Amino acid sequence: MDLTTLTHTELSDRLEGLRKEHARLKERGLRLDLTRGKPSAEQLELSEPLLSLPGGGDHSAEDGTDCRNYGGLKGLAELRATFAGLLQVPVEQLVALGNSSLELMYESVVDAVLFGLPGAPGPWQREGRTAMLCPVPGYDRHFALCEKLGIDMIPVPMTESGPDMDEVERLVADERVKGIWCVPKYSNPTGATYAPETVRRLAAMETAAPDFRVFWDNAYAVHQLQGDREPVADILGLCAEYGNADRVFVFGSTSKITAAGSGVAFFGSSPANVTWLLGHLSKRTIGPDKINQLRHARFLPDAEAVHAHMERHAELLRPKFELVDAVLEKRLGDTGIASWTRPQGGYFVSLDVLDGCASRVVQLAKDAGVALTPAGATFPYGKDPRDRNIRIAPSYPRLEELGDALEGLALCAELAAVEKLLAG
Amino acid sequence: MDLTTLTHTELSDRLEGLRKEHARLKERGLRLDLTRGKPSAEQLELSEPLLSLPGGGDHSAEDGTDCRNYGGLKGLAELRATFAGLLQVPVEQLVALGNSSLELMYESVVDAVLFGLPGAPGPWQREGRTAMLCPVPGYDRHFALCEKLGIDMIPVPMTESGPDMDEVERLVADERVKGIWCVPKYSNPTGATYAPETVRRLAAMETAAPDFRVFWDNAYAVHQLQGDREPVADILGLCAEYGNADRVFVFGSTSKITAAGSGVAFFGSSPANVTWLLGHLSKRTIGPDKINQLRHARFLPDAEAVHAHMERHAELLRPKFELVDAVLEKRLGDTGIASWTRPQGGYFVSLDVLDGCASRVVQLAKDAGVALTPAGATFPYGKDPRDRNIRIAPSYPRLEELGDALEGLALCAELAAVEKLLAG
Repeated sequence: MDLTTLTHTELSDRLEGLRKEHARLKERGLRLDLTRGKPSAEQLELSEPLLSLPGGGDHSAEDGTDCRNYGGLKGLAELRATFAGLLQVPVEQLVALGNSSLELMYESVVDAVLFGLPGAPGPWQREGRTAMLCPVPGYDRHFALCEKLGIDMIPVPMTESGPDMDEVERLVADERVKGIWCVPKYSNPTGATYAPETVRRLAAMETAAPDFRVFWDNAYAVHQLQGDREPVADILGLCAEYGNADRVFVFGSTSKITAAGSGVAFFGSSPANVTWLLGHLSKRTIGPDKINQLRHARFLPDAEAVHAHMERHAELLRPKFELVDAVLEKRLGDTGIASWTRPQGGYFVSLDVLDGCASRVVQLAKDAGVALTPAGATFPYGKDPRDRNIRIAPSYPRLEELGDALEGLALCAELAAVEKLLAG
Repeated sequence: MDLTTLTHTELSDRLEGLRKEHARLKERGLRLDLTRGKPSAEQLELSEPLLSLPGGGDHSAEDGTDCRNYGGLKGLAELRATFAGLLQVPVEQLVALGNSSLELMYESVVDAVLFGLPGAPGPWQREGRTAMLCPVPGYDRHFALCEKLGIDMIPVPMTESGPDMDEVERLVADERVKGIWCVPKYSNPTGATYAPETVRRLAAMETAAPDFRVFWDNAYAVHQLQGDREPVADILGLCAEYGNADRVFVFGSTSKITAAGSGVAFFGSSPANVTWLLGHLSKRTIGPDKINQLRHARFLPDAEAVHAHMERHAELLRPKFELVDAVLEKRLGDTGIASWTRPQGGYFVSLDVLDGCASRVVQLAKDAGVALTPAGATFPYGKDPRDRNIRIAPSYPRLEELGDALEGLALCAELAAVEKLLAG
């Protein structure tokens, strides 16, 4: 039933029914959580062997490095070799570092602010206000990082093929604009993968800032749920081809491959940018945890091992994503008040409810014991101008809980919409 | 023979003999290294069990946390409990973080520069030039960090009881002076441990800067080689007692306890400072590697386990430190041209040669195949005003190599001194 075509009376009747249903839901005293974009316990079990790797006596890297001792700022060659192909970075330009790619993003921005990037006229802090483009909806931690470091954020609409590139090309003509956040594959939260043409335009476009950077957070590079394995276009190669070799910083991590927070993070870029990063890093640390890198190299010795491992993740995740779509389709499919994404990979579904209703949906769900990511979280400064986007994270709950939570969410979305239509 | 009392002729004869000896040494084609303050392979073997810990099926912390998943910014309670006593920080005020205490020092200084400290009028970067006191000789990485972040360094002489406190108290009357680097126990490189009165004065002194901080790099807290186990005075408690609760940042790490670069680093301070650090950290990372923390908690379940483990390190290190003293005593003991420290713990011996000779000694040693830390490295900007200090790191080489290297070093020290005395 398309709610937007109902008469006032029909809506009032509907409201009464929905309110009763909501009251019954509250009585069930649920405590469900759709906020957490983290692996389930079953997924973590897949990496059980890591807990006893590399194993007694095994501490030598291929090149003879004793992984138990200091040094080796670039990380283990064999692990970098495995992830070079997966992240589409030549192995010599890929470094394997600590446990958090977010930390690498933060540090690279801090280094840009304090010391300046290759090709820059100076440190960002000497240039007055700087800004980053933020495809929206997007990843809240990217936005929090910018906000903390005093970098203005300019929202750009996400489409199914990536950020609106006409808008991006228009905005980068402003020299204050120093970068863009990108989650190019199975984007957080929409699940969209950047089309080849989007990637080409990002690599080719003219930017007013000579030190413009694409922050390429390839967090879900191998996190496919269905369909063919299809890597996003090779941005590093394209940037070089278009004479913008230093334009992109590639980030990756095994946090959603092995253990979340106990994985290995990667940074890949042009030779000049890698030298730049390592130069700063060398004053900050003596080197990364090479034993953890060896552990990962033993567990995931090559790209095929990674793909096979990710297929096991997909087997656990696929039913959850299918359930999200099934419940939303069943409850909201013909209501005209909601649309959502059907991602081929990644960790999230992006739900758009009726304009002006997202905060109300989150509140109604909370009242019924279903925790949702705060409305607005997917926008800079937590402000969704249309108050309609809700990020659904289906990976962590058990399937039964997930079904209950989604039924509750769908109910709240409908209830908020009917309230709104009546008021409107 | 006291070289400083010889006649010109006696010195000339001596020079000839030493030059011949140096030539013979060069002919041996040695390749020895006294630069590396890192554990030997034998020491690393002591932590062999870590390579297969926590072991399959073991991933739960005491409080039920699944260490394989995201979160837990403060680190594992059980590991913090073990190190709270050893680092003299109440467990609630101690956080267990990544693999590098140097990184924690760097980040805390960056946060002070960019955002400002509790009690500060503002970020350091808004205050023009700032400065840190640097007891000398000291740790080159502390100095490199300051140099990189544009913080001026003011040398303060180290004594056997810590930095010259009269000088420190005089200098902190300048509000530009924002902190002091301290390695309070078995200091790098002199091996001195701060006397209780030194610690008391650091805690009690009036500082012009309201946000003055003692960067208490307690890197060798449990790294005793001989004598009684004697902790340095409780600076955090003393600071609180004197009404300067927020004055000190305590840093520690297991890098020289378990595996170098694959250990766990700690930060301890007042509640306000811990909240401050974690607030900044929360924008930078989702949390530390908790599996590595669990691994460490399993291997070192309590303080007694740490002490027992460190005694095994001491058994391996003690003969090396004894050899340093024996060779230097034999070759230089009565020459009047060198003095050195006899540390009760830590990783270094500090050798002072004749004024103006350290660079020459390092060069002569290099010519003979013995690598020494560059002269000046133990001073800010790499400049030892008296050009006399050389840091000896005896932990890494095998005992036979160490003996050869020290004989070579002693020869070069004597040769440089005779050259100097003849020229002078």
